[in-house]
Amino acid sequence: MIDRIATDLKEIRRRRPLIHNITNYVVMNFTANILLALGASPVMAHAAEEVEEMAGISSALVINIGTLSSQWVDSMFMAARMAVKKSIPVVLDPVGAGATRFRTETARRLAGEIPLAVVRGNASEIMALAGRSSATKGVDSVDGAVEDARSAAFELARARSVTVAVTGAEDFVTDGTRAVVVANGSPLMGRVTGTGCAASAIVGAFCAVQPDSLVAATGALVTFGIAGELAARSGPGVGTYQALLLDSLDAVDGNVVRERARCRDLPGHP
Amino acid sequence: MIDRIATDLKEIRRRRPLIHNITNYVVMNFTANILLALGASPVMAHAAEEVEEMAGISSALVINIGTLSSQWVDSMFMAARMAVKKSIPVVLDPVGAGATRFRTETARRLAGEIPLAVVRGNASEIMALAGRSSATKGVDSVDGAVEDARSAAFELARARSVTVAVTGAEDFVTDGTRAVVVANGSPLMGRVTGTGCAASAIVGAFCAVQPDSLVAATGALVTFGIAGELAARSGPGVGTYQALLLDSLDAVDGNVVRERARCRDLPGHP
Amino acid sequence: MIDRIATDLKEIRRRRPLIHNITNYVVMNFTANILLALGASPVMAHAAEEVEEMAGISSALVINIGTLSSQWVDSMFMAARMAVKKSIPVVLDPVGAGATRFRTETARRLAGEIPLAVVRGNASEIMALAGRSSATKGVDSVDGAVEDARSAAFELARARSVTVAVTGAEDFVTDGTRAVVVANGSPLMGRVTGTGCAASAIVGAFCAVQPDSLVAATGALVTFGIAGELAARSGPGVGTYQALLLDSLDAVDGNVVRERARCRDLPGHP
Repeated sequence: MIDRIATDLKEIRRRRPLIHNITNYVVMNFTANILLALGASPVMAHAAEEVEEMAGISSALVINIGTLSSQWVDSMFMAARMAVKKSIPVVLDPVGAGATRFRTETARRLAGEIPLAVVRGNASEIMALAGRSSATKGVDSVDGAVEDARSAAFELARARSVTVAVTGAEDFVTDGTRAVVVANGSPLMGRVTGTGCAASAIVGAFCAVQPDSLVAATGALVTFGIAGELAARSGPGVGTYQALLLDSLDAVDGNVVRERARCRDLPGHP
Repeated sequence: MIDRIATDLKEIRRRRPLIHNITNYVVMNFTANILLALGASPVMAHAAEEVEEMAGISSALVINIGTLSSQWVDSMFMAARMAVKKSIPVVLDPVGAGATRFRTETARRLAGEIPLAVVRGNASEIMALAGRSSATKGVDSVDGAVEDARSAAFELARARSVTVAVTGAEDFVTDGTRAVVVANGSPLMGRVTGTGCAASAIVGAFCAVQPDSLVAATGALVTFGIAGELAARSGPGVGTYQALLLDSLDAVDGNVVRERARCRDLPGHP
Repeated sequence: MIDRIATDLKEIRRRRPLIHNITNYVVMNFTANILLALGASPVMAHAAEEVEEMAGISSALVINIGTLSSQWVDSMFMAARMAVKKSIPVVLDPVGAGATRFRTETARRLAGEIPLAVVRGNASEIMALAGRSSATKGVDSVDGAVEDARSAAFELARARSVTVAVTGAEDFVTDGTRAVVVANGSPLMGRVTGTGCAASAIVGAFCAVQPDSLVAATGALVTFGIAGELAARSGPGVGTYQALLLDSLDAVDGNVVRERARCRDLPGHP
């Protein structure tokens, strides 16, 4: 697995895949900078007039429902259908699913109607998407539901033939058959807005070069988690940390991945 | 007062109140990071389909008219009415009131129809809201109207039973009966976009834990002003300063407040 | 030329011109901070209800089509017509022209119907605007078309009586009669999202104080390019670089311009 991640990272930097993001206003700038630091090429476009065309020339589509409105939902479906038609992988970040009916239903409709490559969310979001009740607080997950979320992820992965990544203190990735735990990362990542959204965008970039979605999602979380660890080494403040996260992501290469990756298969799963 | 501020700050970090922001595109990312650095939990949501639900699960609602459009105005009223119904404090930041009729009228309608906890603006904005003519330049206040703005603030506070905070070289807070001047802060804060909006979001977080709006607004301005001073100590450039502001806000605690707070009652006011 | 740039920069800091930006969500925060670091006063407003009024009180209007939707296009035309009526310079940044029909057509309509002061884009965008076919990849230009883009820029400048700036490894500015090459800048600028958009906003600020659009555009690119070089001196990471770019822009003054400006007339052009 780790060799494949190193190779995929190199491939992203060689190909510079165009990643089409329909994402929330809060994180657009940070997401674009994350994708540039990774070595991919970001584009943001949401208008009905152009989303199909933009999705059609991209190497992956990342849909993030963080600051949703009904017009944007229409565009998300249009872009996603075009992406699927052209065999371009689609990643869903169900930000705040479980917090409001509008988000929960939109996330479920997207997961239900679009053949997604990967869904990445926190424990509360994945549980809401899987139809399990859970406590959520706005867009932040509530602790202590790790096992429940993993079982919800597994169920969702099987039901929808999708790779599901639940991020948290340790990340969990499953495609309904295989399961991987990623232990890279830093608690400081939770102190910067949009790190979850950034992870989803990075998943999109890995999907652009790696057809096995479980490997792609794992590669993204390992790479970003390592960047998070490296950025935390000097004990920076939360504001400084945001910039260092970009510096570190740019600095992670195959050798760093081989040295620092901490992911393991869960063989007995489920 | 200073002990209450220290206690409120601690309480924000203990409770991590969810702050619902309907704010402008320019500052969404910075505002979310400010609230995270403070210890609160930010959420941004503006769609008619979900604002009532989101406001209803939040501990404060912050409405900022910085990049307004008519659909967003409708959502602001919907969210604010739900917040009032559930006794959740509502803070208004009338960005650019006085610069265009659309902003002035929207700010006045909000202040007229919604029982607000706090209005925070610069001198020009508060004067526009109070119906006084004043020179404004886009979203930046014009100097030299400190006394006029304070008297407008007092008038507005009485007329609307709201706490009004006028920020500037020195900040002025009044609820129509009491008045406080806050002298914390740094001129560098005016060189970073969104520091006024950040102050309003912090006011929202303090209102979430402190029912006395005058104390809450004062606490927010003292805390943010101290962060601004600490961030300026190394003489950073304007770009570096933005990150240091977040670092410093995270580092301010009760002891720092007790050491550095510079606020005084204006006993003879008005 | 270099003396005029130094004088214009000083004049921006003296007058603090209000620059009205109708720009994309990705770069709004960075653009506002860039204009503040330069010494200008930014405002963002896009609603049909207020764009004419805001444009009418501004010293320049910068239109950027980065995350377009049809309502915003209407507002762009309204604001631009008011600016032209009041003799306020209008700058167009045709982000992603060539990538989708919606962007190409909107950029062409704006350039065709509005008497613009300056158009600033990368090689692909300028070629798309001039009706030349070119390879584009989302919003990033594709290399190797420098000469074609320069000839397209010249053609466009003549046909529309507009100053055209093509930015890249070296920047090219022409008004259809004169032509200038600017060699300032750093490759790191391409690793931060929104540096092209920032350049356009700075062009707007220079246009606010300098009626000769060729001089204004050249001044903006020299000033920003120097800031980019200074920010790169310590060999920062890509995230840190974004903050240093703001620090450096604030630090560039007339003396630094005189020392470091690298621009030359192309006398034989075309």
